[in-house]
Amino acid sequence: MSKTQGASLAIQFDAQSVDNIDIDAICRLRKSEELDERVVWANIADCSSSSRVREVAQAFGFHELIVEDILGNRQRPKVETYGNQLFLILRLPDTSSGEFESQQVSILVCHHVVLTFHAGGEDCFQHLRARIEDPGDSIRGRGPDYLVYALFDAVVDTYFPVVERIAQEISDVERRLAEAVSVDSVTHLQALRSTLFVLQETIEPHREVVSQLGRETNLIDDQTRLYLRDVSDHLSQVLHATETHREQVADLRDYCFAELSFSQNETMKILTIVASVFIPLSFVVGLYGMNFDPTVSGWNMPELKWKYGYLIALCLMAAIVALSLGGLWWLNKVQRASRANRFMTTRRVFSK
Amino acid sequence: MSKTQGASLAIQFDAQSVDNIDIDAICRLRKSEELDERVVWANIADCSSSSRVREVAQAFGFHELIVEDILGNRQRPKVETYGNQLFLILRLPDTSSGEFESQQVSILVCHHVVLTFHAGGEDCFQHLRARIEDPGDSIRGRGPDYLVYALFDAVVDTYFPVVERIAQEISDVERRLAEAVSVDSVTHLQALRSTLFVLQETIEPHREVVSQLGRETNLIDDQTRLYLRDVSDHLSQVLHATETHREQVADLRDYCFAELSFSQNETMKILTIVASVFIPLSFVVGLYGMNFDPTVSGWNMPELKWKYGYLIALCLMAAIVALSLGGLWWLNKVQRASRANRFMTTRRVFSK
Amino acid sequence: MSKTQGASLAIQFDAQSVDNIDIDAICRLRKSEELDERVVWANIADCSSSSRVREVAQAFGFHELIVEDILGNRQRPKVETYGNQLFLILRLPDTSSGEFESQQVSILVCHHVVLTFHAGGEDCFQHLRARIEDPGDSIRGRGPDYLVYALFDAVVDTYFPVVERIAQEISDVERRLAEAVSVDSVTHLQALRSTLFVLQETIEPHREVVSQLGRETNLIDDQTRLYLRDVSDHLSQVLHATETHREQVADLRDYCFAELSFSQNETMKILTIVASVFIPLSFVVGLYGMNFDPTVSGWNMPELKWKYGYLIALCLMAAIVALSLGGLWWLNKVQRASRANRFMTTRRVFSK
Amino acid sequence: MSKTQGASLAIQFDAQSVDNIDIDAICRLRKSEELDERVVWANIADCSSSSRVREVAQAFGFHELIVEDILGNRQRPKVETYGNQLFLILRLPDTSSGEFESQQVSILVCHHVVLTFHAGGEDCFQHLRARIEDPGDSIRGRGPDYLVYALFDAVVDTYFPVVERIAQEISDVERRLAEAVSVDSVTHLQALRSTLFVLQETIEPHREVVSQLGRETNLIDDQTRLYLRDVSDHLSQVLHATETHREQVADLRDYCFAELSFSQNETMKILTIVASVFIPLSFVVGLYGMNFDPTVSGWNMPELKWKYGYLIALCLMAAIVALSLGGLWWLNKVQRASRANRFMTTRRVFSK
Amino acid sequence: MSKTQGASLAIQFDAQSVDNIDIDAICRLRKSEELDERVVWANIADCSSSSRVREVAQAFGFHELIVEDILGNRQRPKVETYGNQLFLILRLPDTSSGEFESQQVSILVCHHVVLTFHAGGEDCFQHLRARIEDPGDSIRGRGPDYLVYALFDAVVDTYFPVVERIAQEISDVERRLAEAVSVDSVTHLQALRSTLFVLQETIEPHREVVSQLGRETNLIDDQTRLYLRDVSDHLSQVLHATETHREQVADLRDYCFAELSFSQNETMKILTIVASVFIPLSFVVGLYGMNFDPTVSGWNMPELKWKYGYLIALCLMAAIVALSLGGLWWLNKVQRASRANRFMTTRRVFSK
Repeated sequence: MSKTQGASLAIQFDAQSVDNIDIDAICRLRKSEELDERVVWANIADCSSSSRVREVAQAFGFHELIVEDILGNRQRPKVETYGNQLFLILRLPDTSSGEFESQQVSILVCHHVVLTFHAGGEDCFQHLRARIEDPGDSIRGRGPDYLVYALFDAVVDTYFPVVERIAQEISDVERRLAEAVSVDSVTHLQALRSTLFVLQETIEPHREVVSQLGRETNLIDDQTRLYLRDVSDHLSQVLHATETHREQVADLRDYCFAELSFSQNETMKILTIVASVFIPLSFVVGLYGMNFDPTVSGWNMPELKWKYGYLIALCLMAAIVALSLGGLWWLNKVQRASRANRFMTTRRVFSK
Repeated sequence: MSKTQGASLAIQFDAQSVDNIDIDAICRLRKSEELDERVVWANIADCSSSSRVREVAQAFGFHELIVEDILGNRQRPKVETYGNQLFLILRLPDTSSGEFESQQVSILVCHHVVLTFHAGGEDCFQHLRARIEDPGDSIRGRGPDYLVYALFDAVVDTYFPVVERIAQEISDVERRLAEAVSVDSVTHLQALRSTLFVLQETIEPHREVVSQLGRETNLIDDQTRLYLRDVSDHLSQVLHATETHREQVADLRDYCFAELSFSQNETMKILTIVASVFIPLSFVVGLYGMNFDPTVSGWNMPELKWKYGYLIALCLMAAIVALSLGGLWWLNKVQRASRANRFMTTRRVFSK
Repeated sequence: MSKTQGASLAIQFDAQSVDNIDIDAICRLRKSEELDERVVWANIADCSSSSRVREVAQAFGFHELIVEDILGNRQRPKVETYGNQLFLILRLPDTSSGEFESQQVSILVCHHVVLTFHAGGEDCFQHLRARIEDPGDSIRGRGPDYLVYALFDAVVDTYFPVVERIAQEISDVERRLAEAVSVDSVTHLQALRSTLFVLQETIEPHREVVSQLGRETNLIDDQTRLYLRDVSDHLSQVLHATETHREQVADLRDYCFAELSFSQNETMKILTIVASVFIPLSFVVGLYGMNFDPTVSGWNMPELKWKYGYLIALCLMAAIVALSLGGLWWLNKVQRASRANRFMTTRRVFSK
Repeated sequence: MSKTQGASLAIQFDAQSVDNIDIDAICRLRKSEELDERVVWANIADCSSSSRVREVAQAFGFHELIVEDILGNRQRPKVETYGNQLFLILRLPDTSSGEFESQQVSILVCHHVVLTFHAGGEDCFQHLRARIEDPGDSIRGRGPDYLVYALFDAVVDTYFPVVERIAQEISDVERRLAEAVSVDSVTHLQALRSTLFVLQETIEPHREVVSQLGRETNLIDDQTRLYLRDVSDHLSQVLHATETHREQVADLRDYCFAELSFSQNETMKILTIVASVFIPLSFVVGLYGMNFDPTVSGWNMPELKWKYGYLIALCLMAAIVALSLGGLWWLNKVQRASRANRFMTTRRVFSK
Repeated sequence: MSKTQGASLAIQFDAQSVDNIDIDAICRLRKSEELDERVVWANIADCSSSSRVREVAQAFGFHELIVEDILGNRQRPKVETYGNQLFLILRLPDTSSGEFESQQVSILVCHHVVLTFHAGGEDCFQHLRARIEDPGDSIRGRGPDYLVYALFDAVVDTYFPVVERIAQEISDVERRLAEAVSVDSVTHLQALRSTLFVLQETIEPHREVVSQLGRETNLIDDQTRLYLRDVSDHLSQVLHATETHREQVADLRDYCFAELSFSQNETMKILTIVASVFIPLSFVVGLYGMNFDPTVSGWNMPELKWKYGYLIALCLMAAIVALSLGGLWWLNKVQRASRANRFMTTRRVFSK
């Protein structure tokens, strides 16, 4: 969903002037080697269009592998140099589907021309364009390597709102947990956790790109190299945040499971008490439900013939109930006391 | 709850003299460019008042974005430079509601004037004011950058009592746990853990502010840069403490759940024993409660007609009880012995 | 499964020319000391053939220990120097059996001759051969130490697809988990985890090899030493990925177990409810199944003779059911409320 | 419990001579500014005595804040400089109560006088006094800064036996666990773990003291700074050991809980088998305990009238028992086989 | 079990010559100060013999503390300097009892004499002796400090087979786990884990010895200092391996417990189903086992008198079974569906 038609336009600038020019014009000038020394940034937002990319590729003499990388959308972030061309692949977060996905941004530097190819979508370079148009901005007097830094920084900055959205979700779940723990919260947390893993895997390789950019090429001057430390810092910040959030999510999830398990066990404890009381009672009533014939001998269930047999049986059962409950209560008290006592003793680690 | 009316006053000082002056006066002098070379610290404690902030902003020529950041209370800690103006946002802990929250402190340096904006509340700068008024203090002979350092340090120092309060709570919970484990302790620990996460998220970005302050600006001189290492150390200390406490809390919480689960299971073990004993008995009494007609044939429950049938049945049941309990005891003993034996064997890792 | 017969051929090259020559020819030339100064790479793909290895060993005067190491397939990655010979053992991933295994690659550098010995299998050096044949490639103008770096890099690069395959499996399992948690997923995850451990143990010692290569020998020149940092970076990347995946797998597995345990408990909760309701009922029906003789006295189970005795008993049972279910529901509600309340209270960490 | 009365004596020394002098004498000499240039170490073991501390404070002109810090026993380890006075607070372990506690040691350096204040208790400075009295010891020729280092080192060294005592306890518990797992072991381990947390919190801030000592002051010369690295190393060693032990304790505790839970479940498994066998039997005996009147029609429980009814019922029950047990056994076998099979399949991670 | 009697012999060597000499001879020469400048290595394998150690001590003038340390076997690894004598204590693994234990190796350097004391056992210095006897080996031309390095390295290398043996055990257990999870595996794993902790505690202090050797002494020359980095690397490797194995063991153990718990719960689930089905049935049969007298009124259990009463009761019970099982199945299906649905929903983290 390309928002601005102008997203595919190109800008040519130096400290004095800025011109919007046509990409076709750049290709034409480039071929006839008439392109002047000003920095050119051409942003091709419809990089899935094979014909457009090939057209530009031909004008600038890209390697065939670069064209393939640009047209595919499956490359990991990387940096490559082909002669004096610098080729970068970065990945932009794309949350338009509701789930976290990422889109490829390809940056190609060829002398003082910087070409960016991406799939349209949200325009993360808008702020950068505004900076270029501002005559007082520091970007105006600098070369294409600074522009590459600025583009990289803009890409990295798009990850911050994503992480903040997740942090928001986490605190939402946490707030709901204060009311009640449910399995819904667990699946929500698991989904967040899995999103955080994908996020980390997407961001992680950008670090390698920064360090390679800073090391390998002679296309980046020393001052811009300093700025790259900024990008590296931002990447570390985002990665640190994802890690903290991942830990937090795992922790909350484990807490949920522990509490769910606790409350399930509480329910079963009720069964325990009910059963512990009634099982002996059922035995007693079963006992006097036996059909031994009392008429055969005086040994066979004489209780059945007693005048107060039934009442005695009822009293017996009442006594069993009292004993069971009392026993459970007493056991609990004894355990608690012995536990507190154990704690007292074991705390004196150094006593002997 | 603004404690001191003077919190919104300004101080002008150098090595020789200190003057309390009026903020309006500073604005007036600034406009007419009559402000002398002494360091000025103007502390605006009612930064939620839009008119006051805008008035000051006009006098010092702030960027509109700075005004918005000061009036909002939702900015993450950051540092920005606008020309020769240095703008910092820090966050102060605010525990007045009982829960941990944070309030924004905005610091703006413009030549030798340092402006601080905050929401009132507890006055963490009181100690700093006292230092300025002390003629022998090192702050007196230094520039605005040192004052920024001192302000930053004062902000960071407010986190120490917060962390200590939490440490206090943890050891309270731990003391209570020695007496009895309860679900209350678990929720208390979970609340502490979640507070520690928020605390960490609040403090973390200050690190980035320190490192940017030390790197980017030419407004901080080399000696002050050394002092910033102190701030960085204090931040590390606070963060390290939050992390240790978080681990400790998680550990205690897991311990609670484990012990709760253990004692729930102990209760259920009682059911097991009761049920294991009574279920066979119930079968026996049920057996002799069957109504097969002994008159039809001698094969139909002749026991019912035996002279000592009932007594034999009772003895049978007593034998079952003895066997059940004896069996459980024996099983336990065998398991324990085989376990000890297994341990002995497996310890000889290198024996063959 | 040696794919290319040519895998055992040798190449002799410098900046100007590349020749495919015979390994036997190299051995012959070497013996007569007629080998010119071009870099020679001899790749012996059938290193399990003892006679071939011994033949080469004799021509180049290997130490007997080297021959044994080459013929065995059980050596950990290592680097050794014998006089001016450099001997490296690396390990290649081998997934042809479906499980992760590794095969030994032995590299021996002797003046400007680089000999590689491996067990055939997938040809990871194909890309390298293509580079050597390309006249414009940087490898052409360089010495045997650069070739060693290139071989090392090629070996390390073979681990990337292995890690990606595992990442793929993990996300497959994760997708299936979204539908249903099963024990199958758990065993799958455990298998992945165990593979990741083996993978890490295989890769880890290569780091030591890199650092020793960079430190100990005077056979590696300074520029190549810089390139070794690249190998080191790639190793770190692979190891970092295995670690992240291992964490992810352990996490998913624990999640599975937690959910399996939760759903088992849910099933048992049904028993709890069923039993809590029916156990008291069974007692009641057992009670009126007792055979106390009502004819002996009016105290013996007079209910049995009441006109509406049965109906009253049924009503009693209905009441018990209602009370049980109502009690469970009420208990649940009370617990939930008290829990929410506790959360509210404990959140106010700083309130007193 | 002050062991040696001499603990409160002072020593004055240089490379040539050592004199035991009186603290009062030092105070007197100090006031009349007649103290010569030798290093003085005055150890005040009764620092809880307010009058003694104030007397010394007056003689040396301490800041009032220092006096308060010395008399209190609640300060965290820290280092402060007041003009050319260096003030350190360290903490000594105190295990005399059986539990781990810590006591404050205050060190004040004022020119060539080093004053130490502590609460008496175990005398950790005994070894140091012996060194000073040895004419050949390196401490004799050095300044007060080296003495501070030696005092610091002596304090840090007192933590080693504490950690070793805990390690001893851990291996005791571990040995007992080999015989039987009990709840006692768990509380013992929890107590150890909580002691380790307190220990770490006590030691941790000393690191900051070392790094501040090495950085901030011009009272420490370069050579002594090197020795401080030793203190730092020892602190790291102690902290590393506490961390390892904490991990070990947590691990053992979790293991205990897991095994306790396992053996509880084993007990419940018995119930499962007993109940699974008897519950159907109880149903059968209950069935034939029903009172449907067989005289009403031939459809009403004709079995009761059968000649072999009772025997058939008994056989039916025997068959049920056989089926139940056989079914459980078969189920177990099938599950085991399918599990082994699943493992085989999932191990072939790379097979397709 | 001292394997070689020669283990207690001494060697005197320089680049040109090697002589086996008698330890008594060395002591004699040393006393008469006639020992020449060649490096002497005297290996005393019977260090538990007090008389032998004291004899050597007298000849070389050891400090009494050194003699005590050598005769005891309980010292942690450490390095000490007494004047120009360097004293090291290292620990050798000893697995002869089947369990992991360690034995002390004491190394004393006094001018160009290196004395090693150990308890006999496996001879880890055999390889080193062979190197010294080889005229071409680099050790021949070097001083006693290099010999110390070589001894240290030999000691550290003895830990590798120990770690590999444990790795072997782990993979054995893992292979058995693929067939069946048993409590035996758990105890085996716990034993391995506890061995790994002891191993780590034994190795860890050697690191400190290396760093002190490299820092404190002027007895180690710069080149040997470089070699010490090798020892440090090997220590790191061993420690890294123990840590990885410890993690792996803990992981497997937790996995075992989780699966044991899972399969215990599966068994209990059977009870759940059996009980859920039979408990209502038992109620029904109990109901019609009640003895309400149908002759008193038509309201008292008229079913007992119905013609098809029994059949109806049987049908009722069959219906209950069908409903129970159907209900369980339906519940399961609904839960599964709602779970899958929840997963779908929660995955769309960014949807609103």
